[in-house]
Amino acid sequence: MSGLFITIEGPDGAGKSSVVKRLVKAIQEATTKPLIVTREPGGSEIAERIRDILLDPIHTVMDDRTEALLLAAGRRQHVVEKINPALERGDIVLCDRFVDSSIAYQGQARGIGIEEVKAINEFAIEGLRPDLTIYLDVDAQVGLNRIKDKSSNRTQDRLELEEVAFHEEVRRGYLALIKAEPSRFVTVDASQSEEKVFNEVWEIVKEKL
Amino acid sequence: MSGLFITIEGPDGAGKSSVVKRLVKAIQEATTKPLIVTREPGGSEIAERIRDILLDPIHTVMDDRTEALLLAAGRRQHVVEKINPALERGDIVLCDRFVDSSIAYQGQARGIGIEEVKAINEFAIEGLRPDLTIYLDVDAQVGLNRIKDKSSNRTQDRLELEEVAFHEEVRRGYLALIKAEPSRFVTVDASQSEEKVFNEVWEIVKEKL
Repeated sequence: MSGLFITIEGPDGAGKSSVVKRLVKAIQEATTKPLIVTREPGGSEIAERIRDILLDPIHTVMDDRTEALLLAAGRRQHVVEKINPALERGDIVLCDRFVDSSIAYQGQARGIGIEEVKAINEFAIEGLRPDLTIYLDVDAQVGLNRIKDKSSNRTQDRLELEEVAFHEEVRRGYLALIKAEPSRFVTVDASQSEEKVFNEVWEIVKEKL
Repeated sequence: MSGLFITIEGPDGAGKSSVVKRLVKAIQEATTKPLIVTREPGGSEIAERIRDILLDPIHTVMDDRTEALLLAAGRRQHVVEKINPALERGDIVLCDRFVDSSIAYQGQARGIGIEEVKAINEFAIEGLRPDLTIYLDVDAQVGLNRIKDKSSNRTQDRLELEEVAFHEEVRRGYLALIKAEPSRFVTVDASQSEEKVFNEVWEIVKEKL
């Protein structure tokens, strides 16, 4: 495959959407190669229907392993219908979240186990690896503060403390992945300003184009 | 777990539905133990929504591995929400298709591979095994003839020949499973009359009650 497959990863509140938005603009200005921008969960018709089940708030009884299998199913379809054909054409594919998210969230933070979640995803992707994964690293508390109403200044309740612990686990999951595959990842300190974060990301991506 | 978990397996046209129907009646007459009758894919609210995606004829682009992962996801939810709680209460659970179907259809007949499909299902069921699996064995051609309009007597077209080859592979998958785990399976010759098939099944089930 001659395309370029870039994924953006990080805990909630790391600023992924903002980076993706700026990156799209910058890539389109820098090259005439077709750019496919996509995201997970979702990215194809069947995968979007799976996403609907995943995100339906009625489904409070959804088991963690069901969730992991649904994510892998949607990913499979996304890879087969969209990512692989684009890479085969030589396109650039920019994807907001991919396998690493499942491993960090379901494998580590939800406690299913990194190796087990890796295995069902390997079944789904059959060896596909991003050429570059940008990991936006941010302290759990900082990330959570960003996605919450910053004006409210009350003390943390039990749920928020639990959330911090969960997000710390997510980060721990990502850091374990980076340790295992350092050459694929580039870590960017996402506690910096949006401008600075994007500039660092762009320096890395530019080189790959 | 003190319940009794019975699954019914076999290729299409083996007569599973008819056996299940008679079995329900016979079990309810023979014991006062609660009986849960269920089926796959489906069996819980989330699993039924997954079933809808699986069976939607619009989804002709669904990849075989997506299908296998969706089946495993629905199965996980079915096990967690319905089968495990019933078995823990000591109920009898009678399930039309379970893991073996995925292995025979997706693993063997669709060619993904028996071991690979086993692995994603192991992720889903975490060691749950039926106490008894009744395999309704029928020749591929006989099974297909049963599910088709028996009045039409035209020659087979290419599609039908392909179907026979596919159903032969399904059967081959089941036979491999039985060879690997002979004590769990009881094979019944489903080319016999409905009455005879049921009587054989009932002799086996009665002993287990």
